[in-house]
Amino acid sequence: MSKNLPSYLTITNNLTQELEAAISTIKPDKIALLVDEHTKKHCLPFLEISFDSLIEIKSGEAQKNLNTCKLIWENLTALNFSRNSLLINLGGGVIGDMGGFAAATYKRGISFIHLPTTLLSQIDAGIGGKLGIDFGGLKNHIGVFKNPNNVIICPEFLNTLPEREIKSGFAEIIKHGLIYDSGYWKQIKEVSIDQTDRMDIIQRSVEIKNAIVERDPLEDGLRKILNFGHTLGHAIESHFLASPNYLLHGEAIAMGMILEAHLALRLEMLSQNEFEEIQTFILSHYRLPKAPELKELISYLKQDKKNRDGSIRFALIEGIGRCTYDVEVSEKLIMSSIKAYNRMKTC
Amino acid sequence: MSKNLPSYLTITNNLTQELEAAISTIKPDKIALLVDEHTKKHCLPFLEISFDSLIEIKSGEAQKNLNTCKLIWENLTALNFSRNSLLINLGGGVIGDMGGFAAATYKRGISFIHLPTTLLSQIDAGIGGKLGIDFGGLKNHIGVFKNPNNVIICPEFLNTLPEREIKSGFAEIIKHGLIYDSGYWKQIKEVSIDQTDRMDIIQRSVEIKNAIVERDPLEDGLRKILNFGHTLGHAIESHFLASPNYLLHGEAIAMGMILEAHLALRLEMLSQNEFEEIQTFILSHYRLPKAPELKELISYLKQDKKNRDGSIRFALIEGIGRCTYDVEVSEKLIMSSIKAYNRMKTC
Repeated sequence: MSKNLPSYLTITNNLTQELEAAISTIKPDKIALLVDEHTKKHCLPFLEISFDSLIEIKSGEAQKNLNTCKLIWENLTALNFSRNSLLINLGGGVIGDMGGFAAATYKRGISFIHLPTTLLSQIDAGIGGKLGIDFGGLKNHIGVFKNPNNVIICPEFLNTLPEREIKSGFAEIIKHGLIYDSGYWKQIKEVSIDQTDRMDIIQRSVEIKNAIVERDPLEDGLRKILNFGHTLGHAIESHFLASPNYLLHGEAIAMGMILEAHLALRLEMLSQNEFEEIQTFILSHYRLPKAPELKELISYLKQDKKNRDGSIRFALIEGIGRCTYDVEVSEKLIMSSIKAYNRMKTC
Repeated sequence: MSKNLPSYLTITNNLTQELEAAISTIKPDKIALLVDEHTKKHCLPFLEISFDSLIEIKSGEAQKNLNTCKLIWENLTALNFSRNSLLINLGGGVIGDMGGFAAATYKRGISFIHLPTTLLSQIDAGIGGKLGIDFGGLKNHIGVFKNPNNVIICPEFLNTLPEREIKSGFAEIIKHGLIYDSGYWKQIKEVSIDQTDRMDIIQRSVEIKNAIVERDPLEDGLRKILNFGHTLGHAIESHFLASPNYLLHGEAIAMGMILEAHLALRLEMLSQNEFEEIQTFILSHYRLPKAPELKELISYLKQDKKNRDGSIRFALIEGIGRCTYDVEVSEKLIMSSIKAYNRMKTC
């Protein structure tokens, strides 16, 4: 295990062995597994452990709400789960965030283990203790900070994913290069995530996220740079959530990164060359729709967790590989970046 | 401030001054006050501070549920509350536990201040960071541990309470003597809580609770002794919750303490004399109904948060002033204590 990884996290293809070791440390009186229809079918067969119950929820971001969370609480209650029981979350960000939140609040907190199955959750959602559910149409609006007992990242799970899911996760890898490590950005531009270097890429991305999170676990400051692309990205994701043309999280973030890089360009934090390098690379990887008008996004933006005193604040890159936060941006400037993006999409 | 009190807690009749000091440390961008119809009428006039909004919920344990919590979350959202906003909980245990839980989970946690207005919440619920709501008919089934930014205890609030509420809170004071301090028990037997020595009694009870909680904040061990009287007490409270003859929390705990003292007697942890001293004192203070049969309580008991491996575990006193925990008790013994209590009630 790398010394740059958090102590509770392992990257391994020896899933069963690591999971057994984690369980024997926790010594739970009962074990339940939280799955969706996809992870039940494709990932559950990887797990050679015994457990007491399977809790199945429907897949998809639209399910990450209070009703589904209530269902998980009801299941744990019906299973007579004690405070010494264990919930294992087998899935992507939705399963991890919501299962983690349900576990962290059931009887004021029981043990839980994340087994992230998507690229996105392996490099992002599984690390740093952000748990929660969407509420009132707002992303992760209700939640807590709490680290899982263990996060076991098994890259083999990625073989079970459709290409669109892999690409969605790749957006967060792009972000890690842009906000923290220009060398990594160059590396990312050369690799293809469906090749053999997955293990290395996952490890580097987890290291970057962990380095940031360790210095600011509760997002009082530095951790906000992880939100690059996410202020507009989350609003866009929320906007399309109920639509048949919904975007995966990473796709919305990819669009958010272009828009927010454009804000940085206009604020003279980013050069024209760097902006174009970013825009070209992202657009070559994603088929993105036109951006919604600001008036469609503004209510979501106003609710962003990084705001203060009613102003909308962004994490923005200052050149490739460096990022700052708490940058107040006017609605007018946001509007002009949306226009610039949509003009470019029409060309 | 006593060095035996937690740093975030003050006992004062200078409410406005202390509250202003607390707010000026937090520097919130918005302030909302959570009240019920009683605290709005009787306690709000004590507060000479300015705030942005009032969130009013209905009073009573029956309201401490997910629906009311959702209402609080919706209110905070509609007020565009940011992560730097502040919720002030003005009320008893229901307002404190639920308002605290809503604040601790809104945007993964905003600042909150407890202004406990009942005797019970001043000496008990305001300290130690237990937050939560009832769920599926089970007390505090969903929640987290998190300390408020401040707890400001203003004994003047007690003048606004009916006698039955004061007596309910007194049950926890009795408990503090029984589990921790035989000298305090003797003192309690002499005082009357509606007299002038309120300030001293509140201070001593808070010190005892704090001494226990500080040594075991997450209830891995010692803190469980605070649950003396509560295993059966909570089950009895839950049983009567929906009934017109509902019991106040302290009344249920008073009955729970007699029943659990009887368990200790039967397990030869408590002498006959001590048991009778406890029973006589409690019954002289409370008008208690007959206890429900075990079969009415068993489903609640099985869900108790202190259980492990399916067995029902109690915190039981070993003489007056000392308490142990994790004592496994058979259903048969519980049944016989209920019978003994009900026989005595009929005499």
